[in-house]
Amino acid sequence: MNKAELYANIKRKHSFLCVGLDTDLKKIPQHLLADDDPVFAFNKAIIDATADYCVAYKPNLAFYEAMGIKGLQSLDKTIAYLKANYPDQFIIADAKRGDIGNTSKMYAQSFFEQMNVDAVTIAPYMGEDSVTPFLGYDGKWVILLALTSNKGSQDFQLTTDTNGERLFEKVIRTSQQWATDENMMYVVGATQGRMFEDIRRVAPNHFLLVPGIGAQGGSLDEVCKYGMNSQCGLLVNSSRAIIYADNTENFAAAARAAAKQVADDMAKYL
Amino acid sequence: MNKAELYANIKRKHSFLCVGLDTDLKKIPQHLLADDDPVFAFNKAIIDATADYCVAYKPNLAFYEAMGIKGLQSLDKTIAYLKANYPDQFIIADAKRGDIGNTSKMYAQSFFEQMNVDAVTIAPYMGEDSVTPFLGYDGKWVILLALTSNKGSQDFQLTTDTNGERLFEKVIRTSQQWATDENMMYVVGATQGRMFEDIRRVAPNHFLLVPGIGAQGGSLDEVCKYGMNSQCGLLVNSSRAIIYADNTENFAAAARAAAKQVADDMAKYL
Repeated sequence: MNKAELYANIKRKHSFLCVGLDTDLKKIPQHLLADDDPVFAFNKAIIDATADYCVAYKPNLAFYEAMGIKGLQSLDKTIAYLKANYPDQFIIADAKRGDIGNTSKMYAQSFFEQMNVDAVTIAPYMGEDSVTPFLGYDGKWVILLALTSNKGSQDFQLTTDTNGERLFEKVIRTSQQWATDENMMYVVGATQGRMFEDIRRVAPNHFLLVPGIGAQGGSLDEVCKYGMNSQCGLLVNSSRAIIYADNTENFAAAARAAAKQVADDMAKYL
Repeated sequence: MNKAELYANIKRKHSFLCVGLDTDLKKIPQHLLADDDPVFAFNKAIIDATADYCVAYKPNLAFYEAMGIKGLQSLDKTIAYLKANYPDQFIIADAKRGDIGNTSKMYAQSFFEQMNVDAVTIAPYMGEDSVTPFLGYDGKWVILLALTSNKGSQDFQLTTDTNGERLFEKVIRTSQQWATDENMMYVVGATQGRMFEDIRRVAPNHFLLVPGIGAQGGSLDEVCKYGMNSQCGLLVNSSRAIIYADNTENFAAAARAAAKQVADDMAKYL
Protein backbone atom coordinates (compact mmCIF):
# COMPACT_ATOMS: atom_id res chain seq x y z
CA MET A 1 0.00 0.00 0.00
CA ASN A 2 1.44 3.40 -0.88
CA LYS A 3 1.24 6.64 1.09
CA ALA A 4 -1.58 8.15 -0.96
CA GLU A 5 -3.71 5.02 -0.51
CA LEU A 6 -3.08 4.99 3.23
CA TYR A 7 -4.06 8.64 3.55
CA ALA A 8 -7.16 8.04 1.40
CA ASN A 9 -8.24 5.26 3.79
CA ILE A 10 -7.72 7.57 6.77
CA LYS A 11 -9.88 10.30 5.21
CA ARG A 12 -12.62 7.88 4.16
CA LYS A 13 -12.83 6.24 7.60
CA HIS A 14 -12.15 9.38 9.66
CA SER A 15 -9.69 7.30 11.67
CA PHE A 16 -5.97 6.76 11.94
CA LEU A 17 -6.32 3.95 14.45
CA CYS A 18 -4.11 0.87 14.31
CA VAL A 19 -5.33 -2.06 16.41
CA GLY A 20 -2.52 -4.05 18.02
CA LEU A 21 -3.15 -7.80 17.89
CA ASP A 22 -1.06 -8.75 20.95
CA THR A 23 -3.01 -11.92 21.49
CA ASP A 24 -2.21 -13.79 24.70
CA LEU A 25 -3.92 -17.07 25.61
CA LYS A 26 -3.92 -16.02 29.26
CA LYS A 27 -5.93 -12.88 28.51
CA ILE A 28 -8.49 -13.90 25.89
CA PRO A 29 -12.02 -14.93 26.98
CA GLN A 30 -11.75 -18.42 28.39
CA HIS A 31 -14.67 -19.83 26.39
CA LEU A 32 -12.52 -19.47 23.25
CA LEU A 33 -10.04 -22.03 24.56
CA ALA A 34 -12.47 -24.76 23.45
CA ASP A 35 -11.85 -23.67 19.82
CA ASP A 36 -9.35 -25.58 17.64
CA ASP A 37 -7.37 -22.39 17.18
CA PRO A 38 -8.32 -19.99 19.99
CA VAL A 39 -5.83 -17.33 18.86
CA PHE A 40 -7.24 -17.15 15.35
CA ALA A 41 -10.81 -17.31 16.66
CA PHE A 42 -10.06 -14.33 18.91
CA ASN A 43 -8.27 -12.35 16.19
CA LYS A 44 -11.03 -12.99 13.64
CA ALA A 45 -13.70 -11.79 16.06
CA ILE A 46 -11.64 -8.72 16.99
CA ILE A 47 -10.99 -7.87 13.34
CA ASP A 48 -14.64 -8.26 12.32
CA ALA A 49 -15.67 -6.08 15.25
CA THR A 50 -13.14 -3.28 14.80
CA ALA A 51 -12.37 -3.05 11.05
CA ASP A 52 -14.93 -0.25 10.52
CA TYR A 53 -13.00 1.98 12.90
CA CYS A 54 -9.35 1.40 12.05
CA VAL A 55 -7.02 1.53 9.04
CA ALA A 56 -4.30 -0.84 10.24
CA TYR A 57 -3.60 -3.96 12.31
CA LYS A 58 -0.32 -4.63 14.07
CA PRO A 59 0.34 -8.15 15.34
CA ASN A 60 3.40 -8.19 17.61
CA LEU A 61 5.45 -11.25 16.69
CA ALA A 62 6.52 -11.90 20.29
CA PHE A 63 3.03 -12.99 21.28
CA TYR A 64 2.83 -15.54 18.47
CA GLU A 65 6.40 -16.84 18.81
CA ALA A 66 5.78 -17.43 22.53
CA MET A 67 3.24 -20.06 21.51
CA GLY A 68 5.73 -21.82 19.26
CA ILE A 69 4.85 -23.10 15.82
CA LYS A 70 1.12 -23.22 16.61
CA GLY A 71 1.23 -19.50 17.36
CA LEU A 72 2.87 -18.74 14.03
CA GLN A 73 0.23 -20.79 12.24
CA SER A 74 -2.45 -18.68 13.95
CA LEU A 75 -0.62 -15.54 12.79
CA ASP A 76 -0.44 -16.78 9.18
CA LYS A 77 -4.17 -17.49 9.26
CA THR A 78 -4.86 -14.04 10.70
CA ILE A 79 -2.91 -12.31 7.94
CA ALA A 80 -4.59 -14.42 5.25
CA TYR A 81 -7.99 -13.56 6.76
CA LEU A 82 -7.20 -9.83 6.71
CA LYS A 83 -5.98 -9.93 3.12
CA ALA A 84 -9.01 -11.86 1.90
CA ASN A 85 -11.67 -9.90 3.76
CA TYR A 86 -10.21 -6.47 4.50
CA PRO A 87 -7.73 -5.71 1.69
CA ASP A 88 -7.74 -2.00 2.57
CA GLN A 89 -6.19 -2.64 6.00
CA PHE A 90 -2.47 -1.85 6.35
CA ILE A 91 -0.76 -4.80 8.08
CA ILE A 92 2.29 -4.16 10.26
CA ALA A 93 4.47 -7.00 11.57
CA ASP A 94 5.80 -5.57 14.82
CA ALA A 95 9.03 -7.54 14.93
CA LYS A 96 11.80 -5.02 15.67
CA ARG A 97 14.27 -6.97 13.57
CA GLY A 98 17.71 -5.87 12.30
CA ASP A 99 20.90 -7.79 11.53
CA ILE A 100 23.90 -7.66 9.18
CA GLY A 101 22.95 -7.19 5.51
CA ASN A 102 23.18 -10.85 4.53
CA THR A 103 20.81 -11.75 7.39
CA SER A 104 18.43 -8.78 7.18
CA LYS A 105 17.83 -9.90 3.61
CA MET A 106 16.49 -13.20 4.96
CA TYR A 107 14.20 -11.36 7.39
CA ALA A 108 12.96 -9.16 4.54
CA GLN A 109 12.03 -12.29 2.60
CA SER A 110 10.16 -13.65 5.66
CA PHE A 111 8.06 -10.58 6.11
CA PHE A 112 7.56 -9.29 2.58
CA GLU A 113 7.53 -12.51 0.55
CA GLN A 114 6.36 -15.29 2.91
CA MET A 115 4.15 -13.37 5.33
CA ASN A 116 3.41 -10.61 2.79
CA VAL A 117 2.66 -7.83 5.30
CA ASP A 118 2.78 -4.14 4.32
CA ALA A 119 5.34 -3.04 6.89
CA VAL A 120 7.79 -4.32 9.46
CA THR A 121 9.28 -2.54 12.48
CA ILE A 122 13.10 -2.42 12.50
CA ALA A 123 15.65 -1.55 15.21
CA PRO A 124 18.28 0.94 14.00
CA TYR A 125 21.25 0.01 16.23
CA MET A 126 23.16 -1.88 13.51
CA GLY A 127 22.90 0.93 10.95
CA GLU A 128 22.43 1.20 7.21
CA ASP A 129 23.10 -2.31 5.93
CA SER A 130 20.75 -3.75 8.56
CA VAL A 131 17.89 -1.61 7.23
CA THR A 132 18.32 -1.28 3.46
CA PRO A 133 17.54 -4.94 2.60
CA PHE A 134 13.95 -4.22 3.68
CA LEU A 135 13.66 -1.33 1.23
CA GLY A 136 13.01 -1.70 -2.47
CA TYR A 137 9.90 -3.87 -2.15
CA ASP A 138 7.19 -2.00 -4.02
CA GLY A 139 4.48 -0.70 -1.67
CA LYS A 140 6.24 -2.13 1.42
CA TRP A 141 7.48 -0.09 4.36
CA VAL A 142 10.19 -0.04 7.01
CA ILE A 143 9.02 1.41 10.32
CA LEU A 144 12.20 2.35 12.14
CA LEU A 145 12.35 2.66 15.94
CA ALA A 146 13.12 6.28 16.80
CA LEU A 147 11.75 7.35 20.20
CA THR A 148 9.88 4.50 21.83
CA SER A 149 7.06 4.58 24.38
CA ASN A 150 8.77 2.70 27.21
CA LYS A 151 10.79 3.92 30.19
CA GLY A 152 13.98 2.43 28.69
CA SER A 153 13.70 4.91 25.80
CA GLN A 154 15.59 7.28 28.11
CA ASP A 155 18.64 5.03 28.44
CA PHE A 156 20.15 5.53 24.99
CA GLN A 157 17.70 7.24 22.62
CA LEU A 158 18.01 10.63 24.36
CA THR A 159 21.81 10.62 24.51
CA THR A 160 23.12 13.90 23.07
CA ASP A 161 26.19 13.72 20.85
CA THR A 162 28.99 16.24 20.41
CA ASN A 163 27.00 17.96 17.61
CA GLY A 164 24.11 18.57 20.01
CA GLU A 165 21.98 15.94 18.30
CA ARG A 166 20.11 13.31 20.28
CA LEU A 167 20.36 9.68 19.14
CA PHE A 168 16.71 9.43 18.03
CA GLU A 169 17.19 12.59 15.94
CA LYS A 170 20.37 11.19 14.41
CA VAL A 171 18.52 7.97 13.56
CA ILE A 172 15.74 9.90 11.83
CA ARG A 173 18.10 12.26 10.00
CA THR A 174 20.59 9.59 8.91
CA SER A 175 17.96 7.11 7.77
CA GLN A 176 16.53 9.71 5.38
CA GLN A 177 19.65 9.09 3.30
CA TRP A 178 18.44 5.50 2.81
CA ALA A 179 14.71 5.91 2.31
CA THR A 180 11.93 8.42 1.71
CA ASP A 181 8.56 9.20 3.29
CA GLU A 182 7.10 6.81 0.72
CA ASN A 183 8.81 3.72 2.16
CA MET A 184 9.84 4.61 5.71
CA MET A 185 7.94 5.56 8.85
CA TYR A 186 9.19 6.06 12.42
CA VAL A 187 8.03 4.66 15.75
CA VAL A 188 7.43 7.46 18.25
CA GLY A 189 5.75 6.63 21.55
CA ALA A 190 2.55 8.48 22.49
CA THR A 191 4.08 8.94 25.95
CA GLN A 192 6.64 11.35 24.48
CA GLY A 193 4.26 14.38 24.47
CA ARG A 194 5.90 17.57 23.24
CA MET A 195 8.86 15.65 21.83
CA PHE A 196 6.67 15.24 18.75
CA GLU A 197 7.57 18.85 17.92
CA ASP A 198 11.25 17.86 17.78
CA ILE A 199 10.41 14.81 15.67
CA ARG A 200 8.47 16.94 13.18
CA ARG A 201 11.46 19.28 12.84
CA VAL A 202 13.55 16.37 11.40
CA ALA A 203 10.71 14.43 9.75
CA PRO A 204 7.92 16.82 8.74
CA ASN A 205 6.37 14.56 6.10
CA HIS A 206 6.83 11.00 7.35
CA PHE A 207 4.11 8.88 8.82
CA LEU A 208 4.73 8.06 12.49
CA LEU A 209 3.57 4.84 14.10
CA VAL A 210 2.54 5.83 17.61
CA PRO A 211 2.11 3.14 20.26
CA GLY A 212 1.41 3.98 23.87
CA ILE A 213 -2.11 5.34 24.14
CA GLY A 214 -4.41 3.24 26.30
CA ALA A 215 -2.63 0.86 28.70
CA GLN A 216 0.66 2.79 28.45
CA GLY A 217 -0.96 6.15 29.27
CA GLY A 218 -0.08 8.39 26.29
CA SER A 219 -2.42 11.26 25.33
CA LEU A 220 -4.11 11.34 21.91
CA ASP A 221 -4.60 15.08 22.26
CA GLU A 222 -0.88 15.77 22.69
CA VAL A 223 0.06 13.38 19.89
CA CYS A 224 -2.30 15.16 17.46
CA LYS A 225 -1.41 18.66 18.64
CA TYR A 226 2.33 18.19 18.17
CA GLY A 227 2.57 15.29 15.73
CA MET A 228 -0.09 15.62 13.03
CA ASN A 229 0.86 16.97 9.59
CA SER A 230 -1.13 18.00 6.52
CA GLN A 231 -1.61 14.37 5.42
CA CYS A 232 -2.40 13.19 8.94
CA GLY A 233 1.03 11.54 9.25
CA LEU A 234 -0.03 9.42 12.21
CA LEU A 235 -0.99 5.82 12.79
CA VAL A 236 -1.91 5.65 16.45
CA ASN A 237 -1.89 2.15 17.91
CA SER A 238 -3.91 0.79 20.77
CA SER A 239 -3.62 -2.86 21.75
CA ARG A 240 -4.71 -3.92 25.23
CA ALA A 241 -7.30 -1.15 25.78
CA ILE A 242 -9.22 -2.36 22.71
CA ILE A 243 -8.69 -6.09 22.38
CA TYR A 244 -9.04 -6.77 26.11
CA ALA A 245 -11.81 -4.23 26.75
CA ASP A 246 -13.85 -7.17 28.09
CA ASN A 247 -13.06 -10.85 28.56
CA THR A 248 -16.55 -12.35 28.65
CA GLU A 249 -18.59 -13.63 25.70
CA ASN A 250 -19.27 -9.96 25.00
CA PHE A 251 -15.60 -9.26 24.21
CA ALA A 252 -16.04 -8.47 20.49
CA ALA A 253 -18.82 -5.93 21.05
CA ALA A 254 -16.75 -4.33 23.80
CA ALA A 255 -13.71 -4.14 21.50
CA ARG A 256 -15.90 -2.56 18.81
CA ALA A 257 -17.17 0.05 21.26
CA ALA A 258 -13.63 0.80 22.45
CA ALA A 259 -12.35 1.15 18.87
CA LYS A 260 -15.33 3.34 17.94
CA GLN A 261 -14.63 5.64 20.86
CA VAL A 262 -10.98 6.13 19.84
CA ALA A 263 -12.03 6.67 16.21
CA ASP A 264 -14.65 9.22 17.27
CA ASP A 265 -11.95 11.07 19.19
CA MET A 266 -9.63 10.90 16.18
CA ALA A 267 -12.28 12.24 13.77
CA LYS A 268 -12.21 15.57 15.62
CA TYR A 269 -8.57 16.11 14.68
CA LEU A 270 -8.89 15.25 10.98
CA MET B 1 25.16 -23.33 31.48
CA ASN B 2 27.10 -21.08 33.87
CA LYS B 3 30.34 -19.22 33.23
CA ALA B 4 32.59 -21.75 35.01
CA GLU B 5 31.11 -24.62 32.97
CA LEU B 6 31.59 -22.72 29.73
CA TYR B 7 35.21 -21.96 30.57
CA ALA B 8 35.79 -25.59 31.60
CA ASN B 9 34.50 -26.72 28.18
CA ILE B 10 36.84 -24.27 26.45
CA LYS B 11 39.86 -25.56 28.38
CA ARG B 12 38.96 -29.20 27.82
CA LYS B 13 38.45 -28.76 24.08
CA HIS B 14 41.21 -26.17 23.52
CA SER B 15 38.68 -24.21 21.49
CA PHE B 16 36.43 -21.20 21.87
CA LEU B 17 34.80 -21.68 18.50
CA CYS B 18 31.09 -21.13 17.97
CA VAL B 19 29.69 -22.55 14.74
CA GLY B 20 26.98 -20.41 13.17
CA LEU B 21 24.13 -22.49 11.78
CA ASP B 22 22.96 -20.00 9.13
CA THR B 23 21.38 -22.70 7.04
CA ASP B 24 20.11 -21.60 3.65
CA LEU B 25 18.42 -24.01 1.22
CA LYS B 26 20.10 -22.23 -1.69
CA LYS B 27 23.56 -22.95 -0.31
CA ILE B 28 23.43 -26.48 1.10
CA PRO B 29 24.55 -29.44 -1.04
CA GLN B 30 21.81 -30.10 -3.54
CA HIS B 31 21.64 -33.84 -2.90
CA LEU B 32 20.18 -33.05 0.56
CA LEU B 33 17.10 -31.52 -1.02
CA ALA B 34 15.76 -35.06 -1.55
CA ASP B 35 15.56 -35.45 2.24
CA ASP B 36 12.25 -34.94 4.07
CA ASP B 37 13.84 -32.15 6.10
CA PRO B 38 16.96 -30.95 4.23
CA VAL B 39 17.68 -28.21 6.78
CA PHE B 40 17.76 -30.61 9.71
CA ALA B 41 19.70 -33.20 7.68
CA PHE B 42 22.33 -30.54 6.91
CA ASN B 43 22.49 -29.24 10.50
CA LYS B 44 22.77 -32.74 11.95
CA ALA B 45 25.65 -33.62 9.61
CA ILE B 46 27.42 -30.32 10.35
CA ILE B 47 26.98 -30.76 14.11
CA ASP B 48 28.25 -34.36 14.08
CA ALA B 49 31.24 -33.27 11.99
CA THR B 50 32.23 -30.19 14.01
CA ALA B 51 31.21 -30.84 17.65
CA ASP B 52 34.71 -32.03 18.59
CA TYR B 53 36.15 -28.65 17.69
CA CYS B 54 33.64 -26.15 19.05
CA VAL B 55 31.94 -25.25 22.33
CA ALA B 56 28.85 -23.48 20.99
CA TYR B 57 26.35 -23.39 18.13
CA LYS B 58 24.54 -20.27 17.02
CA PRO B 59 21.53 -20.66 14.73
CA ASN B 60 20.47 -17.28 13.35
CA LEU B 61 16.68 -17.13 13.50
CA ALA B 62 16.40 -15.16 10.25
CA PHE B 63 17.44 -18.15 8.18
CA TYR B 64 14.77 -20.38 9.73
CA GLU B 65 11.99 -17.79 9.74
CA ALA B 66 12.62 -17.17 6.03
CA MET B 67 11.46 -20.75 5.42
CA GLY B 68 8.24 -20.21 7.34
CA ILE B 69 6.84 -22.74 9.79
CA LYS B 70 8.78 -25.60 8.21
CA GLY B 71 12.01 -23.72 8.91
CA LEU B 72 11.12 -23.27 12.56
CA GLN B 73 10.32 -26.97 12.85
CA SER B 74 13.79 -27.74 11.48
CA LEU B 75 15.25 -25.38 14.09
CA ASP B 76 13.34 -27.05 16.93
CA LYS B 77 14.62 -30.45 15.77
CA THR B 78 18.17 -29.10 15.58
CA ILE B 79 18.05 -27.79 19.15
CA ALA B 80 16.52 -31.03 20.43
CA TYR B 81 19.27 -32.98 18.64
CA LEU B 82 21.99 -30.85 20.21
CA LYS B 83 20.51 -31.17 23.70
CA ALA B 84 20.13 -34.95 23.41
CA ASN B 85 23.53 -35.69 21.87
CA TYR B 86 25.84 -32.82 22.79
CA PRO B 87 24.62 -31.49 26.15
CA ASP B 88 27.92 -29.66 26.72
CA GLN B 89 27.36 -27.36 23.73
CA PHE B 90 26.25 -23.80 24.52
CA ILE B 91 23.29 -22.91 22.27
CA ILE B 92 22.79 -19.30 21.21
CA ALA B 93 19.62 -18.13 19.48
CA ASP B 94 20.85 -15.23 17.35
CA ALA B 95 17.61 -13.29 17.24
CA LYS B 96 18.53 -9.68 18.11
CA ARG B 97 15.17 -9.15 19.82
CA GLY B 98 14.12 -6.30 22.13
CA ASP B 99 10.74 -4.70 22.82
CA ILE B 100 8.83 -2.99 25.66
CA GLY B 101 8.91 -4.94 28.94
CA ASN B 102 5.50 -6.57 28.54
CA THR B 103 6.55 -7.87 25.11
CA SER B 104 10.18 -8.76 25.86
CA LYS B 105 8.76 -11.03 28.56
CA MET B 106 6.95 -12.99 25.82
CA TYR B 107 10.18 -13.26 23.80
CA ALA B 108 12.02 -14.48 26.90
CA GLN B 109 9.42 -17.22 27.30
CA SER B 110 9.89 -18.21 23.63
CA PHE B 111 13.62 -18.57 23.88
CA PHE B 112 14.18 -19.76 27.43
CA GLU B 113 11.04 -21.83 28.07
CA GLN B 114 9.81 -23.05 24.66
CA MET B 115 13.06 -23.25 22.70
CA ASN B 116 15.17 -23.70 25.84
CA VAL B 117 18.42 -22.29 24.43
CA ASP B 118 21.27 -21.06 26.69
CA ALA B 119 21.47 -17.54 25.36
CA VAL B 120 19.74 -15.05 23.08
CA THR B 121 21.14 -11.97 21.35
CA ILE B 122 19.34 -8.72 22.21
CA ALA B 123 19.39 -5.23 20.65
CA PRO B 124 19.91 -2.47 23.24
CA TYR B 125 18.15 0.47 21.55
CA MET B 126 15.00 0.31 23.72
CA GLY B 127 16.93 0.27 27.01
CA GLU B 128 16.57 -1.39 30.39
CA ASP B 129 13.00 -2.71 30.40
CA SER B 130 13.56 -4.29 26.98
CA VAL B 131 16.48 -6.33 28.34
CA THR B 132 15.71 -7.22 31.96
CA PRO B 133 12.84 -9.65 31.21
CA PHE B 134 15.47 -11.97 29.70
CA LEU B 135 17.51 -11.97 32.92
CA GLY B 136 16.74 -14.02 35.99
CA TYR B 137 16.52 -17.37 34.21
CA ASP B 138 19.03 -19.60 35.99
CA GLY B 139 21.98 -20.48 33.73
CA LYS B 140 20.59 -18.44 30.82
CA TRP B 141 22.32 -15.48 29.18
CA VAL B 142 21.59 -12.22 27.41
CA ILE B 143 24.11 -11.38 24.69
CA LEU B 144 23.71 -7.67 24.09
CA LEU B 145 24.73 -6.02 20.82
CA ALA B 146 27.57 -3.61 21.54
CA LEU B 147 29.89 -3.07 18.56
CA THR B 148 28.80 -5.18 15.64
CA SER B 149 30.84 -6.57 12.74
CA ASN B 150 29.03 -4.84 9.88
CA LYS B 151 29.71 -1.57 8.07
CA GLY B 152 26.55 -0.05 9.58
CA SER B 153 28.12 -0.34 13.05
CA GLN B 154 29.68 3.03 12.25
CA ASP B 155 26.35 4.80 11.78
CA PHE B 156 25.24 5.01 15.42
CA GLN B 157 27.40 2.77 17.66
CA LEU B 158 30.45 5.02 17.40
CA THR B 159 28.58 8.26 18.10
CA THR B 160 30.36 10.16 20.90
CA ASP B 161 28.19 11.83 23.51
CA THR B 162 28.79 15.03 25.47
CA ASN B 163 30.62 13.03 28.19
CA GLY B 164 33.10 11.73 25.61
CA GLU B 165 31.57 8.26 25.71
CA ARG B 166 30.73 6.36 22.54
CA LEU B 167 27.32 4.70 22.29
CA PHE B 168 28.70 1.12 22.40
CA GLU B 169 30.64 2.03 25.56
CA LYS B 170 27.54 3.55 27.12
CA VAL B 171 25.58 0.40 26.28
CA ILE B 172 28.20 -1.79 27.95
CA ARG B 173 28.61 0.46 30.99
CA THR B 174 24.89 1.07 31.54
CA SER B 175 23.87 -2.56 31.08
CA GLN B 176 26.24 -3.59 33.87
CA GLN B 177 23.71 -1.99 36.22
CA TRP B 178 21.20 -4.62 35.07
CA ALA B 179 23.30 -7.78 34.86
CA THR B 180 26.67 -9.32 35.70
CA ASP B 181 29.34 -11.24 33.81
CA GLU B 182 27.49 -14.38 34.93
CA ASN B 183 24.36 -13.65 32.87
CA MET B 184 25.37 -11.12 30.23
CA MET B 185 27.82 -11.17 27.30
CA TYR B 186 28.38 -8.60 24.55
CA VAL B 187 28.53 -8.90 20.77
CA VAL B 188 31.73 -7.36 19.41
CA GLY B 189 32.60 -7.89 15.76
CA ALA B 190 35.95 -9.47 14.88
CA THR B 191 36.32 -6.75 12.27
CA GLN B 192 36.75 -4.15 15.06
CA GLY B 193 40.45 -4.95 15.65
CA ARG B 194 42.05 -2.74 18.30
CA MET B 195 38.64 -1.55 19.51
CA PHE B 196 38.72 -4.68 21.68
CA GLU B 197 41.12 -2.77 23.95
CA ASP B 198 38.44 -0.15 24.52
CA ILE B 199 35.83 -2.86 25.11
CA ARG B 200 38.04 -4.55 27.72
CA ARG B 201 38.41 -1.23 29.53
CA VAL B 202 34.65 -1.18 30.23
CA ALA B 203 34.06 -4.95 30.39
CA PRO B 204 37.24 -6.70 31.56
CA ASN B 205 35.53 -9.89 32.76
CA HIS B 206 32.60 -10.46 30.43
CA PHE B 207 32.50 -13.05 27.71
CA LEU B 208 32.30 -11.51 24.24
CA LEU B 209 30.53 -13.17 21.34
CA VAL B 210 32.65 -12.34 18.31
CA PRO B 211 31.19 -12.80 14.83
CA GLY B 212 33.02 -11.73 11.72
CA ILE B 213 35.99 -14.03 11.19
CA GLY B 214 35.85 -16.01 7.97
CA ALA B 215 33.51 -14.59 5.33
CA GLN B 216 33.41 -11.14 6.98
CA GLY B 217 37.22 -10.84 7.11
CA GLY B 218 38.02 -10.30 10.82
CA SER B 219 41.37 -11.47 12.22
CA LEU B 220 41.53 -14.11 14.97
CA ASP B 221 44.99 -12.89 15.91
CA GLU B 222 43.80 -9.34 16.61
CA VAL B 223 40.72 -10.55 18.46
CA CYS B 224 42.85 -12.71 20.79
CA LYS B 225 45.60 -10.13 21.22
CA TYR B 226 43.24 -7.36 22.30
CA GLY B 227 40.17 -9.22 23.49
CA MET B 228 41.16 -12.31 25.45
CA ASN B 229 41.06 -12.24 29.26
CA SER B 230 42.25 -14.63 32.00
CA GLN B 231 39.21 -16.89 31.53
CA CYS B 232 39.39 -16.73 27.73
CA GLY B 233 36.37 -14.40 27.61
CA LEU B 234 35.76 -15.06 23.93
CA LEU B 235 33.34 -17.09 21.87
CA VAL B 236 34.46 -16.57 18.30
CA ASN B 237 31.84 -17.41 15.70
CA SER B 238 32.33 -18.60 12.17
CA SER B 239 29.34 -19.47 10.00
CA ARG B 240 29.77 -19.52 6.24
CA ALA B 241 33.49 -20.38 6.17
CA ILE B 242 32.77 -23.61 8.06
CA ILE B 243 29.31 -24.79 7.12
CA TYR B 244 29.73 -23.98 3.42
CA ALA B 245 33.38 -25.04 3.16
CA ASP B 246 32.23 -27.43 0.41
CA ASN B 247 28.86 -28.07 -1.20
CA THR B 248 29.35 -31.55 -2.61
CA GLU B 249 28.65 -34.88 -0.86
CA ASN B 250 31.93 -34.22 0.96
CA PHE B 251 30.50 -31.16 2.77
CA ALA B 252 30.58 -32.61 6.30
CA ALA B 253 34.22 -33.70 6.12
CA ALA B 254 35.14 -30.30 4.69
CA ALA B 255 33.27 -28.54 7.50
CA ARG B 256 35.09 -30.73 10.03
CA ALA B 257 38.45 -29.84 8.50
CA ALA B 258 37.57 -26.12 8.48
CA ALA B 259 36.44 -26.25 12.13
CA LYS B 260 39.57 -28.19 13.11
CA GLN B 261 41.77 -25.60 11.48
CA VAL B 262 40.14 -22.73 13.39
CA ALA B 263 40.31 -24.74 16.64
CA ASP B 264 44.01 -25.50 16.03
CA ASP B 265 44.63 -21.78 15.59
CA MET B 266 42.67 -21.05 18.75
CA ALA B 267 44.57 -23.60 20.84
CA LYS B 268 47.74 -21.52 20.41
CA TYR B 269 46.16 -18.62 22.25
CA LEU B 270 44.79 -20.60 25.20
